[in-house]
Amino acid sequence: MNPEQLVRKVTAATGFTQAAGVEVVSAEAGAVTLRLPRKPDLLQFNGFFHGGVVSGLADHAAGAAATTALPPGKIAVTVDLHINYLAPASGDSLLARARALQVGSTICVVAVELDSDTASGARLCAVASVTLRVVDMPAIQP
Amino acid sequence: MNPEQLVRKVTAATGFTQAAGVEVVSAEAGAVTLRLPRKPDLLQFNGFFHGGVVSGLADHAAGAAATTALPPGKIAVTVDLHINYLAPASGDSLLARARALQVGSTICVVAVELDSDTASGARLCAVASVTLRVVDMPAIQP
Amino acid sequence: MNPEQLVRKVTAATGFTQAAGVEVVSAEAGAVTLRLPRKPDLLQFNGFFHGGVVSGLADHAAGAAATTALPPGKIAVTVDLHINYLAPASGDSLLARARALQVGSTICVVAVELDSDTASGARLCAVASVTLRVVDMPAIQP
Amino acid sequence: MNPEQLVRKVTAATGFTQAAGVEVVSAEAGAVTLRLPRKPDLLQFNGFFHGGVVSGLADHAAGAAATTALPPGKIAVTVDLHINYLAPASGDSLLARARALQVGSTICVVAVELDSDTASGARLCAVASVTLRVVDMPAIQP
Repeated sequence: MNPEQLVRKVTAATGFTQAAGVEVVSAEAGAVTLRLPRKPDLLQFNGFFHGGVVSGLADHAAGAAATTALPPGKIAVTVDLHINYLAPASGDSLLARARALQVGSTICVVAVELDSDTASGARLCAVASVTLRVVDMPAIQP
Repeated sequence: MNPEQLVRKVTAATGFTQAAGVEVVSAEAGAVTLRLPRKPDLLQFNGFFHGGVVSGLADHAAGAAATTALPPGKIAVTVDLHINYLAPASGDSLLARARALQVGSTICVVAVELDSDTASGARLCAVASVTLRVVDMPAIQP
Repeated sequence: MNPEQLVRKVTAATGFTQAAGVEVVSAEAGAVTLRLPRKPDLLQFNGFFHGGVVSGLADHAAGAAATTALPPGKIAVTVDLHINYLAPASGDSLLARARALQVGSTICVVAVELDSDTASGARLCAVASVTLRVVDMPAIQP
Repeated sequence: MNPEQLVRKVTAATGFTQAAGVEVVSAEAGAVTLRLPRKPDLLQFNGFFHGGVVSGLADHAAGAAATTALPPGKIAVTVDLHINYLAPASGDSLLARARALQVGSTICVVAVELDSDTASGARLCAVASVTLRVVDMPAIQP
């Protein structure tokens, strides 16, 4: 599997990302972009994407960016995540651009930028840094 | 509205928490407990609650714990969130216990403990600290 | 070496903690308390302990709490640290109480509470959560 | 005062940064670079810069980057700080490059990159994100 196939397979096999509607925009080793179109189940009462959805997309993008940079048979699972919310996520979709800062044999660190995207352009709405550890990949039931 | 009525109203009016199935266990000023029963849409491919769902529940619980401690007409919105995942969230439900450490006129800080809960007992699976700022409460359309 | 001897040795061998004046109050496996008396070199221009000093004490206490819980020959080094400042650290000394939440073979997580301490009592001024990884202990030159 | 004069004044009036030896490399509105030369009082027992010193420099740089972007008479104080350590800070000096991501009337968010710097080049050794709140500037006694 190449990086994009791997990210598509994990995203398709994960109940949360499937139910939410996460789309894989691009994936190469250490750099993954995901998109999440707006729908009512993902929003706060004020009509913006819920903070938990934003952090969930950041978490999934970080795991993907780290895992694509690891040797086959390894996967990165989140140890901790820090996210700053900079602006309301009021757009038609959320875009998460994850980039591995460090890929080690036991620890990875990934930076994620999140954009609120509309027809008239994207606006940075959150930034996250995610620490992950490397474990053996379990079998994935698609 | 008393604190529990307020938390129930916001949780019911929020698409994300409604779709996920978040339940309000208890709410008093500055201390809120939420429960989220397991279902496939909330899981990772390995069958545990997805990290984004865990952080989303922490975020919502933190907002509720801070807002119930504020004067009427004010609401706390998340500025940033840090979460440490300590153990797989493999239980029948997630439990988030949020407690305000600081309630100021502009900033609140809330600590959240998250348990993976089963018939045989609860186990701490994550801890989060959440910084929020105080804004005027918008109208809530139930 | 017992836990307290180990923490005293590392603290004495570390230039930063020696220059700052860090004192070991107590140390058992997974739980360490440190004290740092006030002096001008540790302060902000407003007379409070500098935030960097507070986070530095938290970092050192976390490393000590994790390392005392590890097998002999292992040491925990910080991967990432998150700290919330709750109140000015205006006291005569800072007190850091660190407690390991998780001690694994590769990762440890430690919670730290920091008090601003005066003759009339201690007041919580910051809380931190620290993620560390386990490495082989290098030789310590005292 | 222009931004560089302001940062120099605050850095000179602060006991911690003076004792540590923090130097102002450059300062413009929202972007500040600081340098901290190596000396024994700043090190761990293994000879690297202590994590607390790295986070302390990040904290000071973040405060400077936010404050220079604020209207006169306002100063940004740290609410919380998250730092990821990526590589040992083993160089001759530490370099902190802080850049404001958000400058609001009550909250600022600053990203900081920290390099371990040697004659043969700089290497990224840590990244931090810092949330600050805006308060009235107190009088600074130089």
